[in-house]
Amino acid sequence: MAAKPGIPKGTRDFSPAEMAKRNYIFDTIRNVYHLYGFQQIETPAMENLSTLMGKYGDEGDKLLFKIQNSGDYFSKLTDEELLSRDAAKLASKFCEKGLRYDLTVPFARYVVMHRNEITFPFKRYQIQPVWRADRPQKGRYREFYQCDADVVGSDSLLNEIELMEIVDTVFTKFDIRVCIKINNRKILSGIAEVIGESDKIVDITVAIDKLDKVGLDNVNKELSEKGISDEAIAKLQPIINLSGTNAEKLTVLKDVLASSEIGLKGVEESQFILEALSTLELKNEIELDLTLARGLNYYTGAIFEVKALDVEIGSITGGGRYDNLTGVFGLKDVSGVGISFGADRIYDVLNQLELYPKDALFGSQLLFINFGEKEAAYCLKVLTKVRKAGIRAEIYPDFGAKMKKQMTYANNNQVAFVAMVGENEMAEGKISLKNMETGEQKAVTIEELVNIIKK
Amino acid sequence: MAAKPGIPKGTRDFSPAEMAKRNYIFDTIRNVYHLYGFQQIETPAMENLSTLMGKYGDEGDKLLFKIQNSGDYFSKLTDEELLSRDAAKLASKFCEKGLRYDLTVPFARYVVMHRNEITFPFKRYQIQPVWRADRPQKGRYREFYQCDADVVGSDSLLNEIELMEIVDTVFTKFDIRVCIKINNRKILSGIAEVIGESDKIVDITVAIDKLDKVGLDNVNKELSEKGISDEAIAKLQPIINLSGTNAEKLTVLKDVLASSEIGLKGVEESQFILEALSTLELKNEIELDLTLARGLNYYTGAIFEVKALDVEIGSITGGGRYDNLTGVFGLKDVSGVGISFGADRIYDVLNQLELYPKDALFGSQLLFINFGEKEAAYCLKVLTKVRKAGIRAEIYPDFGAKMKKQMTYANNNQVAFVAMVGENEMAEGKISLKNMETGEQKAVTIEELVNIIKK
Repeated sequence: MAAKPGIPKGTRDFSPAEMAKRNYIFDTIRNVYHLYGFQQIETPAMENLSTLMGKYGDEGDKLLFKIQNSGDYFSKLTDEELLSRDAAKLASKFCEKGLRYDLTVPFARYVVMHRNEITFPFKRYQIQPVWRADRPQKGRYREFYQCDADVVGSDSLLNEIELMEIVDTVFTKFDIRVCIKINNRKILSGIAEVIGESDKIVDITVAIDKLDKVGLDNVNKELSEKGISDEAIAKLQPIINLSGTNAEKLTVLKDVLASSEIGLKGVEESQFILEALSTLELKNEIELDLTLARGLNYYTGAIFEVKALDVEIGSITGGGRYDNLTGVFGLKDVSGVGISFGADRIYDVLNQLELYPKDALFGSQLLFINFGEKEAAYCLKVLTKVRKAGIRAEIYPDFGAKMKKQMTYANNNQVAFVAMVGENEMAEGKISLKNMETGEQKAVTIEELVNIIKK
Repeated sequence: MAAKPGIPKGTRDFSPAEMAKRNYIFDTIRNVYHLYGFQQIETPAMENLSTLMGKYGDEGDKLLFKIQNSGDYFSKLTDEELLSRDAAKLASKFCEKGLRYDLTVPFARYVVMHRNEITFPFKRYQIQPVWRADRPQKGRYREFYQCDADVVGSDSLLNEIELMEIVDTVFTKFDIRVCIKINNRKILSGIAEVIGESDKIVDITVAIDKLDKVGLDNVNKELSEKGISDEAIAKLQPIINLSGTNAEKLTVLKDVLASSEIGLKGVEESQFILEALSTLELKNEIELDLTLARGLNYYTGAIFEVKALDVEIGSITGGGRYDNLTGVFGLKDVSGVGISFGADRIYDVLNQLELYPKDALFGSQLLFINFGEKEAAYCLKVLTKVRKAGIRAEIYPDFGAKMKKQMTYANNNQVAFVAMVGENEMAEGKISLKNMETGEQKAVTIEELVNIIKK
């Protein structure tokens, strides 16, 4: 007997039930992207390593899955090189391709390669798996999907506004209550500038973020420990204590940041976005949150993050504006703004809150019991008509199968209705239809059957 | 300036227009699979090499994309091993994982791993990319999609019947005229048995296949050259000359194969399938074709193949019945039957015949021209309503953009309607709506706009 097969660690099979749930998530996001004029692209799973390397930092480079060249790659190596056993150096001789690590770098590569075909602003979305040789752990996989939407080639804040509306619409459709947090890199830069500590943005936001947990004194203590001067800490007090509505926060910030051009620009941008959103009657709260500090190496304007209100889990969606998507590939001045839905975490939230709509979890709606060849031949013709009406239907294939086995099949596949056609039914042109949930059973015509199931 | 980026040879980017076409193909196939009770699974892109190796022959093993192990794989190798430069042998030390080469082996692995969760018969479909390190050429890629459906754990011929109906339905939906060819491995075995040349099935079918092109004499000459005896060739004459309806062909075969148990079984199976199908009013012709010899190493019963009638291209769909899907992984007696749609070839056929329905190629249905901040703020609220009605709509994001640029954007993205809202329209609560195809323009309310676009 062969060895029992397995799959690589950190990867997953998806069963029909899991696929139905995942498709519900992807289809919901995709449909909302479409409503907002985003168009799909796909890029190959493999990219040249020259495209991927150096884009994710040294740690990222190590997490790339590299694909071994075909052919005789050894002949090009000297004995010395081989015996050096320098894995990192030799990998570059053995491998020219790697699996994509995210969707952003392949998108940047796509924009540069196809810039003459693209009409800017380019609103693209992309839903594809990515691969990372990370240490697998709960909720972290080596293969997982990203669902990104970006607008590139436009500086307009309308894009930020629409992306926030997309976030609100998607989570409203999922029935997940969320708080949408928004910040602006320029406000953070302004704060650091005003207090004279431009290089300590991250330390400051991290410390402020602890206010609820540790109290004001401890926040100030931490700031001091991070080497921030007493004078600067004093200036920070209105910001640490920032509270109230978004409008109230912005009023305080405008005051504190009065001397910082970039800070005021950030306040102005945030004000524009938040005011426009307030007229659009979103279902979820949008909160200006200065402690939001994701992607500070990357984002240059608005920064977003979404937290689920009813489940303890990290961020389930995030994004922001960046200035220079494609510079690394030699194309300057392509700015953009994007969001990324965390499909795997959304999956966990929907599971935990049991929010999957019943009809998202479909198998067949109707199973015909197989009573034998003559009856099956009759059922096949009925099936053709039922399917033409758009009903997902099947007949149990095995002629001799016991009723119990057929009903188990119906139950395990969560079939909603079972149809029985024996001699009597064939003579009368009827079908005995059983509702598997209520147990109710009655003889109906094909037309009646279609109406009952489609109801 | 950085080097101009490219993608690995044999791989492709898909633009929004190409994605729309591809999604039309995948969605059509997927929806038909659903109507017949097939359920989707997905497996990881990476499989253990122990799962993949030895399943596709020596040639196939060479075409696997192998993924380099992380970490220090060199330390486990002796100097001797390294200096041997034996690429094939050392690859097994460097690599434990590979990219999937088809969907069948991962499916077999899935069935074995999950056999205790699966209710048989298991009707699964799978639409995912596969990777092969083949020499790229026109129409042959290193990354391409397969769209497979299989029923495993059932010997019933109802499965064959339904798969043929699926093929007919899918190509009817595509509006591609096809001939569905069907054969049976058992008939071929019977023929070889009857003429006493059991090991020459392939030679015989290849020779017979040339009848139309080279004539009977040359077919017989080729058979003789292949070492088939004159007596056997004489016995083959009724089969080489086989013609007429499927029923007529079966009658001749029953006669010729009278002494072969397996041959008669093949005739009986084909008869059962073809008779059932004749009652189901398929749109495309089904033809019993003894020269159909695909997958003879693999298929044990029915064999199918689909040819497009209006385009010169190879088979665009194929499949058949197999006896032992999972034996190689230690699980015996799992028989099944499956089909695989060739999405890339179907893409080419639809392109060549220009058969894509207009609404499959969608971008936004509606673009709002951006006249400035005040007008845009007004349009955002209209957009919310329009999208709630299910219309794919957007506003040009940049406030200062020239009209010409905005209209170019609309044209290049094939937007169907353009909406203009200036001071007058805002005062009157109307929208100037322009039909981009006819050029017609009129002032409408939101409700009228929705009705016009949804029509």
